[in-house]
Amino acid sequence: MQGDIKMVKRYRFGSPIETEAVLHKPDITERECEWLKKSEDGFFCRLPQETIVYGLGESIRGINKRGWLYRSFCSDEPEHREDKQSLYGAHNFLLLSGDVYRKEDTEDALPEQKNIGFFFDTPGEIVFDIGYTKRDRMEITFSDFDLELYVMEGESPDEVVSAFRELIGRSYIPPKWAFGYGQSRWSYETADDVRKVAEEHKRLKLPLDSVYLDIAYMERYKDFTIDEKNFGDFDSLVKEMKENRIHLVPIIDAGVKIEEGYDVYEEGKEKGYFCKDENGEDFTVGVWPGKCHFPDMLNEEARHWFGDKYHLLTDRGIDGFWNDMNEPAIFYSEKHLKKVFDRIDELKKENLDVDTYFEMTGLVAGSSNNLEDHKSFYHQYSEMPGEDRIRHDKVHNLYGYYMTRAAAEAFEELVPEKRILLFSRASYIGMHRYGGIWQGDNMSWWSHLLLNIKMMPSLNMCGFLYTGADLGGFGADVTEDLLIRFLSFGIFTPLMRNHSALGTRRQELYLFEKKEEILGVLKMRYRLLPYLYSEFMKAALRGTMMFRPLGFVYREDRIARQTEDQLLLGEELMLAPVHEQNQGGRPVYLPERMKFLRFRKGELLEEEVLERGYTFVEMPLGDICIFLREGHKLPLAESASHRNFENTEDVDYDNLVFCEFGDEIPDYEYYSDDGETKEYSLEKNIRML
Amino acid sequence: MQGDIKMVKRYRFGSPIETEAVLHKPDITERECEWLKKSEDGFFCRLPQETIVYGLGESIRGINKRGWLYRSFCSDEPEHREDKQSLYGAHNFLLLSGDVYRKEDTEDALPEQKNIGFFFDTPGEIVFDIGYTKRDRMEITFSDFDLELYVMEGESPDEVVSAFRELIGRSYIPPKWAFGYGQSRWSYETADDVRKVAEEHKRLKLPLDSVYLDIAYMERYKDFTIDEKNFGDFDSLVKEMKENRIHLVPIIDAGVKIEEGYDVYEEGKEKGYFCKDENGEDFTVGVWPGKCHFPDMLNEEARHWFGDKYHLLTDRGIDGFWNDMNEPAIFYSEKHLKKVFDRIDELKKENLDVDTYFEMTGLVAGSSNNLEDHKSFYHQYSEMPGEDRIRHDKVHNLYGYYMTRAAAEAFEELVPEKRILLFSRASYIGMHRYGGIWQGDNMSWWSHLLLNIKMMPSLNMCGFLYTGADLGGFGADVTEDLLIRFLSFGIFTPLMRNHSALGTRRQELYLFEKKEEILGVLKMRYRLLPYLYSEFMKAALRGTMMFRPLGFVYREDRIARQTEDQLLLGEELMLAPVHEQNQGGRPVYLPERMKFLRFRKGELLEEEVLERGYTFVEMPLGDICIFLREGHKLPLAESASHRNFENTEDVDYDNLVFCEFGDEIPDYEYYSDDGETKEYSLEKNIRML
Repeated sequence: MQGDIKMVKRYRFGSPIETEAVLHKPDITERECEWLKKSEDGFFCRLPQETIVYGLGESIRGINKRGWLYRSFCSDEPEHREDKQSLYGAHNFLLLSGDVYRKEDTEDALPEQKNIGFFFDTPGEIVFDIGYTKRDRMEITFSDFDLELYVMEGESPDEVVSAFRELIGRSYIPPKWAFGYGQSRWSYETADDVRKVAEEHKRLKLPLDSVYLDIAYMERYKDFTIDEKNFGDFDSLVKEMKENRIHLVPIIDAGVKIEEGYDVYEEGKEKGYFCKDENGEDFTVGVWPGKCHFPDMLNEEARHWFGDKYHLLTDRGIDGFWNDMNEPAIFYSEKHLKKVFDRIDELKKENLDVDTYFEMTGLVAGSSNNLEDHKSFYHQYSEMPGEDRIRHDKVHNLYGYYMTRAAAEAFEELVPEKRILLFSRASYIGMHRYGGIWQGDNMSWWSHLLLNIKMMPSLNMCGFLYTGADLGGFGADVTEDLLIRFLSFGIFTPLMRNHSALGTRRQELYLFEKKEEILGVLKMRYRLLPYLYSEFMKAALRGTMMFRPLGFVYREDRIARQTEDQLLLGEELMLAPVHEQNQGGRPVYLPERMKFLRFRKGELLEEEVLERGYTFVEMPLGDICIFLREGHKLPLAESASHRNFENTEDVDYDNLVFCEFGDEIPDYEYYSDDGETKEYSLEKNIRML
Repeated sequence: MQGDIKMVKRYRFGSPIETEAVLHKPDITERECEWLKKSEDGFFCRLPQETIVYGLGESIRGINKRGWLYRSFCSDEPEHREDKQSLYGAHNFLLLSGDVYRKEDTEDALPEQKNIGFFFDTPGEIVFDIGYTKRDRMEITFSDFDLELYVMEGESPDEVVSAFRELIGRSYIPPKWAFGYGQSRWSYETADDVRKVAEEHKRLKLPLDSVYLDIAYMERYKDFTIDEKNFGDFDSLVKEMKENRIHLVPIIDAGVKIEEGYDVYEEGKEKGYFCKDENGEDFTVGVWPGKCHFPDMLNEEARHWFGDKYHLLTDRGIDGFWNDMNEPAIFYSEKHLKKVFDRIDELKKENLDVDTYFEMTGLVAGSSNNLEDHKSFYHQYSEMPGEDRIRHDKVHNLYGYYMTRAAAEAFEELVPEKRILLFSRASYIGMHRYGGIWQGDNMSWWSHLLLNIKMMPSLNMCGFLYTGADLGGFGADVTEDLLIRFLSFGIFTPLMRNHSALGTRRQELYLFEKKEEILGVLKMRYRLLPYLYSEFMKAALRGTMMFRPLGFVYREDRIARQTEDQLLLGEELMLAPVHEQNQGGRPVYLPERMKFLRFRKGELLEEEVLERGYTFVEMPLGDICIFLREGHKLPLAESASHRNFENTEDVDYDNLVFCEFGDEIPDYEYYSDDGETKEYSLEKNIRML
């Protein structure tokens, strides 16, 4: 896959702040970039009509990012609507595929067929206007026009991605058990709630590898504490779960509660490890625990101190974490809220008319996550030793990345031999080396199942391989059919977790009626594990993508290039999930002859060779439909009827069966390792099967 | 179309409140309904897997309503997200098509193939759980279990709809000019803003029939007033526009501003025509004008009084109106807001933690349109002469209907010969006789273009024929491609209006770059007008649907039954609009051989016979793609190249050209009339062409 990389060029603009996103830096090119014209505060270029703009990782909208304005600024955004501009990640990578003009081209020049990647490496805000203001123009503007720009060309989109991934280093690799099914809820309120999940899964023979602990497990939402009242027997809970081969995965939030006697707070305060306001006082915000300080994750010493705290949980047998609220999310700052209250007092005295009414509702609604707050606190950034302090908004996009790095670096010290599950909500490219991400607080919307599908390749390009959406949807109420369709795609994503929010309909699998269908879907996950793990590891170790848009492979096929609700998985498979309600099947576009495989209840039920073109495929709820490319084979764990999967440990990675399509099928490169240690060698761990 | 209606049965439960939705009432059946079991507060029945549930008019989600919970309660809902339950209309009609069980059937009974319509006639809240709680069960519950239930069976869905439409009477018919293109914005702030729209359309030869006036034309948002400062020369503006054959269409809001010296307020107060609070005082709410009273539209005398006020505008040459905020929307009530302020005062004194913070934000966000306010005021309902007063929530769904009826009844008195354009935001079935509706405050979302498509047949079933969405989307920022795709479907909807909200990107057509594409789309609207008007009038006069789901016609075709992003228009056409971004075409399902017609710049560019099945059809922006059914012909106004359409008056309804498909094509039943008077006779106005 590592193709003939023509070149990677590195340009510098202004005085960039180091992000440590890029590990392997070429020398800075003195010449100007051929493809982008400079404006006062950024770049612009022409966008010929058929050129696809891939990239931007975790973003709303399509695989082709054309036709919208995206703002790279990690955001606590619970409504992933089409008109939003930012989600939790800042993934400043674009890949133009198709006709491109050189910047000095005259209006009548002919464009060239190109695949060009751009990485805009800067920790501040960027606005990507990709054909929003004008359909055939891209404009990229920076709040601070200080950045390193990396430009890479390739013969194919895959080549560009490989070149980029080489720059930014190897993606995070989780333990193998983290590929099992995980059940989550905001929140399991007691240890018995957790036990109930494990028991119900066991009773119904629904496999389960992990249960997630959202904020309720903590004492008053204090990081690294356990609530004595409801989780008093935490150690026995961990032990019990371990006996059942179930991993508990607690959440860690960015904000540290201000509470006398709470050691993390007191130590951080004493050592000066919290972010400061303009007067040098610890900056105070309201988040889940109430009033909090933010550990200064950009300060190396503070970062090591915070990371080391994870030992309080690893020491108790915990081997997985999710880092949350680390954009960082701010419900309110003391300063801002005072302003809001004062203004409401004034308004109250007036004869409230409609303008003042909307002023009030606007003030209150705008009190969370506002830019004014982001401009009100400061970091001591270790990468800028000359600087006294740096204002948060200038390095905003690094916070979640450095929080997750804090944990990952600590694990290297605490448990160097062992892989720890770690993923984050906020991220920047570079963080992909330290942890995965989940796709944030989505909704139980059909359109978010589609968004989940479209995000996978975009994230893979940017190095985020261990990822998945909250299956079933986090906010809003799920329906059984939506949950099953979400699961039916989720069985292919490395992170396979069902998570839902306080106040919404519960979506634990055992609560639904059609248990046979759900069980059949889950069984397929476990049968697919040898293949999924193998594909994941090859993508991580080779710097390739696990999920690719059809246009990456069928580059001359106009229909394939614009098909966004089908994906390629590895070299072998095409997926075409149902993502609309009341659809018992869907039209599938076959860019080449493929073998259609239908699995029901974990067993192969039907196979049929389908010709190139559109075919309507019946896909009743519970069926898993896979399209196998010609000349390939799909390894599967032994049939579920022979073996009951309780969790990943029950999967036999050595005795595989194969679905095949073609006359002369080359061997499948099968990667397999112990899944726990860090002996990742491709040479040692690949077998040809 | 009027088929062999097996029967319509009428059942009574409790003590129903008359809604005047049904004009032609059969006698009440003493037997029990065969299909629905009674629960304590409603009905339930089994839903076999393949049975489609059509209906519910203006609602979110699909044409098949299965898999969600809908609440029939007219709502000022600016976010038409998938997880919402109510929009502006209350359209309590369901049509079950497919397998149905009789209620006394045992578990192992075989279902029967049926098409059954249900109209639940009650003005209060209804919850339709259509396979939400359990996938194979429908449950309908009533806040007040008092209703008339009408049940109708037919050999086909069309027959059921015809039977229903016969019950509820003929749909509203607008003047012919109301089928032209209309431009709107919240708000054109001055008369010159309006002139600018007209001029720019003229300059670019973009046809235009109407300009809409949103709330800014009024003096301090007072109904039936004109702002002297910005619209001081209103009469000359109307005159000028008339000379340019452009109609001004002002908005009328439900709330009447409390202001001394404002005659509508003073008269209403003096005569006791406003809704009262529990103490018999005029109920006060905050809406656009600030503090307001609601005219009691249910009180016949008050209704006539309010309706008569429209003469203040018709006298000045206005012949079109849109009624808004008539769910009725309530930003706040004085009483409720006081509570909110008092609680905020208390919270402020506390050491605000995260719970109290969310209590505050919740209180403020919940101050609009809350049920407590709806339970705090009263009507004198003329249909309940025995009752002293009735609490609003019991008759909530009638308010917008009766406001629009007020206007329509007044027009019958004021200008009996003339058709007046009238449409409303809120509605109930029955209102379809008095006006159309627009599809409310949608967003510039691609998913709302799809929602627009899906709503058309659902609304048509319920008698709402004059309807359309805010093209381009009301809230959020539009992109040029979304606008063009919205227009490309909007040219087929009777109401074709571009409308957008304060604070969003402007979306007047002349502001975009690709004017050729936009002009080409608009020209097609005017070429289609003879056909669209003819189809509209036949649907109105015969009680049929203009837009039908594919499943209505291709009833045995499983793919057609579940295809929801294609529609049939009349007997002749199938539409398959592009509704996703960056799609230069789309797969189209042809349930039978059809002739594909491609129009560009208003001219037929290509025609091709396509066989049954899926075909990918290229549909670049600006092209209008139509599928003509075999054995049919499509009449079009003379080619746009021969004739420049400035507006509907330039369309020659007599000299038509035809696109045809088939060997022996029966004549097209062409309806045409003067478009202004009420001489609607089918016999007189239909010609066979």
